[in-house]
Amino acid sequence: MKPTDQPYVHGYDQRENIRLHDQASTLVELLHADTAYPPGSHVLEAGCGVGAQTITLARNSPDAQITSIDISERSVAEAQKKVEDAGYTNVSFQQGDIFNLEYAPESFDHIFVCFVLEHLARPLDALNALKHFLKVGGTITVIEGDHGSAYFYPDNEASHRAIQCQIELQKRAGGNANIGRALYPLLTAGGFRSINVSPRMVYVDTSKPHFVEGFTKNTFTAMIEGVRASSIEAGLIDESTFDEGIKGLYRTTEPDGVFCYTFFKATAQK
Amino acid sequence: MKPTDQPYVHGYDQRENIRLHDQASTLVELLHADTAYPPGSHVLEAGCGVGAQTITLARNSPDAQITSIDISERSVAEAQKKVEDAGYTNVSFQQGDIFNLEYAPESFDHIFVCFVLEHLARPLDALNALKHFLKVGGTITVIEGDHGSAYFYPDNEASHRAIQCQIELQKRAGGNANIGRALYPLLTAGGFRSINVSPRMVYVDTSKPHFVEGFTKNTFTAMIEGVRASSIEAGLIDESTFDEGIKGLYRTTEPDGVFCYTFFKATAQK
Repeated sequence: MKPTDQPYVHGYDQRENIRLHDQASTLVELLHADTAYPPGSHVLEAGCGVGAQTITLARNSPDAQITSIDISERSVAEAQKKVEDAGYTNVSFQQGDIFNLEYAPESFDHIFVCFVLEHLARPLDALNALKHFLKVGGTITVIEGDHGSAYFYPDNEASHRAIQCQIELQKRAGGNANIGRALYPLLTAGGFRSINVSPRMVYVDTSKPHFVEGFTKNTFTAMIEGVRASSIEAGLIDESTFDEGIKGLYRTTEPDGVFCYTFFKATAQK
Repeated sequence: MKPTDQPYVHGYDQRENIRLHDQASTLVELLHADTAYPPGSHVLEAGCGVGAQTITLARNSPDAQITSIDISERSVAEAQKKVEDAGYTNVSFQQGDIFNLEYAPESFDHIFVCFVLEHLARPLDALNALKHFLKVGGTITVIEGDHGSAYFYPDNEASHRAIQCQIELQKRAGGNANIGRALYPLLTAGGFRSINVSPRMVYVDTSKPHFVEGFTKNTFTAMIEGVRASSIEAGLIDESTFDEGIKGLYRTTEPDGVFCYTFFKATAQK
């Protein structure tokens, strides 16, 4: 899932630390506010896609040297245009396959991987491949969602079934839509140390209209709606159940509705 | 669920606000660290049970006057002994039914309700009954779990089925084990204002051995294990599936396991 790109505001209240987490006003703030790399450090963004996260990396670490790669030439071009249009000059772009990169070993101080492992059949191999290019003592940051973390009020069995279609289709494509919860075991298996996994729960009720629109409707429900045809074609669900599920997800955006989803952000050292 | 009673430590780090939430070292800290009532204020703890939360209330608000009630005379006696043994003198205890209390209207500045609504067939009526005794401008704090928020690695269908037994039994007893996600709509329906719901996610991996033992094993899994006989007797599940489910929950406490559960803490004003 790609969060929308929004400016963020730092919070410095000493006395309500827990609330600050809850009050993150955008998904970008919730996921990325605590990622900033030191001046002069070399950062590899592996799997930049069309640059949704690259913009935030560039802004949060203005004096770091960021290298953003993606396997898709077209995505790289789009990401590059986006970042250049935004006026950032601290990112260089290259087409590249995580499993076949040509950098020298230990070329990077930090590696950043966001919404990538969920699509890979061999996420552990990907981590090991990337580790090769990380300096000893350098950090890796991994952010992933977990569709099994979605629950809501009112509850609705058809909605869970529609979500399950997305999970199953992603599985058939070799990925894992529930990979967020597995970041700790993955990084452990990859031999990283000082692993810290920090769940970033998106809790949405009417008091957070920005998240009702931006997350529940336009990010999560839109994503599930997007697999309607392929889910029905694959025989995973019938049309009316799927449509009832989507209706149930929209129902959670009404004034008495609640929607919960959790992203997982992991950091670790080589 | 009753959290274990543990001392807590305040955190004052300005720069890692989000991590402070993750790093809460005990469940008591995660749920209660931000509840403290001013000197001289009158606080009603409705449904104190055997005093698991009363101890924390008494410690965090040493100069507030706390009145703790429970419908069970025996629980009240146990809570009173616990609090007196701990040396706190700021709590008075009374047997009382939330639906039939004899205080004057608007007797209390603050009301605290923790792990109570989940057991009630009419949680909204309970909130309305309590509101009667709250001063205008006073606050209510409600904390509840949500068993539908439990997910884990490795995932295990039998474990979800065993958890579902607990949910179903609680439902048949008139309660709602998934009430956490419904606090916002409940407080809205009760006519409260300035409602703020703050999810408190318990994320457990091997790096948090205290939570592996204290929460995953001894709180959550123990609770599910406790409904084995009644679940099988009610025909909700067969023995081998239930036992496989429990085994799956213990599996999440092994070095590569992960367990997630979310409590919801709501505050609102009359």
